[in-house]
Amino acid sequence: MQTMFLYNWNVREDWYRWCEEINEDELLLVRTGGVGGILHTLFHIIDVEWSWIRILQGKPDFEESFDGYKSLNQVRALDDKFHEEVEEFVRNWDDDMELNVLEETMPDGRIVIDTWGEVMRHVIAHEIHHIGQLSVWAREIGKKPVSANLIGRGLVPISKTDK
Amino acid sequence: MQTMFLYNWNVREDWYRWCEEINEDELLLVRTGGVGGILHTLFHIIDVEWSWIRILQGKPDFEESFDGYKSLNQVRALDDKFHEEVEEFVRNWDDDMELNVLEETMPDGRIVIDTWGEVMRHVIAHEIHHIGQLSVWAREIGKKPVSANLIGRGLVPISKTDK
Repeated sequence: MQTMFLYNWNVREDWYRWCEEINEDELLLVRTGGVGGILHTLFHIIDVEWSWIRILQGKPDFEESFDGYKSLNQVRALDDKFHEEVEEFVRNWDDDMELNVLEETMPDGRIVIDTWGEVMRHVIAHEIHHIGQLSVWAREIGKKPVSANLIGRGLVPISKTDK
Repeated sequence: MQTMFLYNWNVREDWYRWCEEINEDELLLVRTGGVGGILHTLFHIIDVEWSWIRILQGKPDFEESFDGYKSLNQVRALDDKFHEEVEEFVRNWDDDMELNVLEETMPDGRIVIDTWGEVMRHVIAHEIHHIGQLSVWAREIGKKPVSANLIGRGLVPISKTDK
């Protein structure tokens, strides 16, 4: 589980660096698909990751809109602010938590049951999916996207592979 | 690990059904980003998944090009053909295999070491990333994309959550 989060954080950092080279108008331009823009997507990824981690802990989640975060610096600052709590939860993740149950009541009264393991994987897949959208938009503005490769990032310490 | 593969296969099946409602010209149209088209992307996902599973087993992998698979039926038939072997490998995956080492010699002579766990996660992330690209192209042709949600697909049997 942790490796996939490390992958997402690593790729996200690469995208922040990629954004530094792009005109802010391009980062804010409303585009087709997803949540409709590059910076908005990064904001959305941060928001969703943090919100689910908060929900699993029974804490209130984030309610702000993208309107207050329309610059790369503001989005990165929000990420920095949330990351500590997210990282701590992920670092302390244990396989014993897999089948913990999250029970939520939907607006229509239905009760939905997800396991914590499903929620964590949902968060992982959510980010990768949205990053895939960024890769199309990058090409639309004539730029090479960040690599989506998981191998080659040194996510598993080489010492562990040396056996 | 298995849950993420189940998610990918489930989402992929949803995309095949989505494709059934779309004109084949749209499925074959060369688009910006990724491997450049909807059906080509699905072919590429199948190819890459199977190839890595073959490589881990020390077997020769797939060398054909998309040229021979330019219809939804042909792509699905290829998927059916490969799926049995992929599914068996995934079903038999065990955490003890995580740190098995895959050593590959690159064309420039460099030796690259990845753990099997990294390779499996690479395959998972690869598909989700490319499916994100499909979601943008779906909107470009005015269609609602398949949901990328992992929760709500019943991937973990409810009996397991009932504790």
